[in-house]
Amino acid sequence: MGVVVNTNGSWLARKLTSIGYRVDRIIVVPDSKNDVVEEVRRALSRGVRVLIVTGGLGPTYDDNTASFIAEAINRRMILNAEAYKMVSEKYKAMGQEMTPPREKQAWMPEGSIPIPNPVGTAPGFVIEVDRTIIVCLPGVPREMKKMFEDYVEKRLRELSAMRVVDEWLVIEGVEESSIASIIEAKAKEHPEVYVKTHPTVLENGGFRIRVQVTAAGRSEEEAKQKALKVALDIRKALEEAGVKCRTGQ
Amino acid sequence: MGVVVNTNGSWLARKLTSIGYRVDRIIVVPDSKNDVVEEVRRALSRGVRVLIVTGGLGPTYDDNTASFIAEAINRRMILNAEAYKMVSEKYKAMGQEMTPPREKQAWMPEGSIPIPNPVGTAPGFVIEVDRTIIVCLPGVPREMKKMFEDYVEKRLRELSAMRVVDEWLVIEGVEESSIASIIEAKAKEHPEVYVKTHPTVLENGGFRIRVQVTAAGRSEEEAKQKALKVALDIRKALEEAGVKCRTGQ
Repeated sequence: MGVVVNTNGSWLARKLTSIGYRVDRIIVVPDSKNDVVEEVRRALSRGVRVLIVTGGLGPTYDDNTASFIAEAINRRMILNAEAYKMVSEKYKAMGQEMTPPREKQAWMPEGSIPIPNPVGTAPGFVIEVDRTIIVCLPGVPREMKKMFEDYVEKRLRELSAMRVVDEWLVIEGVEESSIASIIEAKAKEHPEVYVKTHPTVLENGGFRIRVQVTAAGRSEEEAKQKALKVALDIRKALEEAGVKCRTGQ
Repeated sequence: MGVVVNTNGSWLARKLTSIGYRVDRIIVVPDSKNDVVEEVRRALSRGVRVLIVTGGLGPTYDDNTASFIAEAINRRMILNAEAYKMVSEKYKAMGQEMTPPREKQAWMPEGSIPIPNPVGTAPGFVIEVDRTIIVCLPGVPREMKKMFEDYVEKRLRELSAMRVVDEWLVIEGVEESSIASIIEAKAKEHPEVYVKTHPTVLENGGFRIRVQVTAAGRSEEEAKQKALKVALDIRKALEEAGVKCRTGQ
């Protein structure tokens, strides 16, 4: 209905592009079984290497993505023991009992490997069908991003036919918001790489910002050159704005 | 590649939902002929009533949406005389000559009806294929929205099997930003209607804000009830915040 803007789609597309994937489609479907089943089957029949599905994993009556996927790939839904442990420990830590709606978050298509959710309650899962890896994640952006970065990205990097290289810049004594617009402008100028800033507050109260530039190439050398070129361009822009920085992690 | 977040998709979905359509898919494809042709043909074979395509109508070498659509529906590309007039008048007003890249914006699938672009240079177009109406608009949000509201929405309202009714509130003496969060919260609470504010500065320097609530229903009566319910709810929230308002346009 258009109430929510799909920021998950572009975030994932940016990530996937940076680690060497070509994004084939971003598709939004109504929350109905027929629509989800149709699109999952179409992705499988196109033979995509990776299908990422977000949303509909929570405890409420209208969170049915796991069972829709099970139907699309002809698997039974089972209570996944590992996922059950994750979910019940979450509620235990909040001092809450397991109930059928909460348990529902641990039901997955048979053969799934659960993905821990460090932010919310619903685990994600990964399941392979022929040559396609289906990755299913919650729709809440904060949960989806954390789970993708902690558990999915590394595996997809390994699978990619491309080599991926990170270059790093380190900036000290400057607070993140004062360089955000410079970094953002450079990230937009260079869609061929993924740029991410990692701010830390040091023990002495000072600031350290690490800038990660991730690039993919057909060889390690090509990826490195791409990442380095952008890292040096960012460094130049920062120095022109009077901000000192050094390479290295 | 995920560099741009697709805000056009959700804006159009919100609009279409409010005038009685069910949005079947929002699909983002790479800017390649095969991908665009495949998705246009799939929409036609699903028999959708309306297909809205945005982006790729400009003068540059990679703006090829019109010819991709022509290929998908097996029509020739022709120089549309009415569109040529629109485009050449735009450049004339800017004191610029027509060149082949500028003229390209007036080439459309044979049988298209051009849609004027009051904001930019590239006209959109409408073309009917069997029972599907294809509406093609620029990707720049400001151009797309203006053209949809001025030239497309009225026609789609007439086509819709649903009846659509507007209810209005008028607020005077208050500036828009001071009530924006109240209106926005209510709009989110009621995705079944479309809420839009129209601010005006009066001749005496005062402010007038008109709030439009658009709802669709199977009958005029049902639509009116839906719109009125939300209008009264917004009015209640405004009055609780100390803002006076009245019904009526």
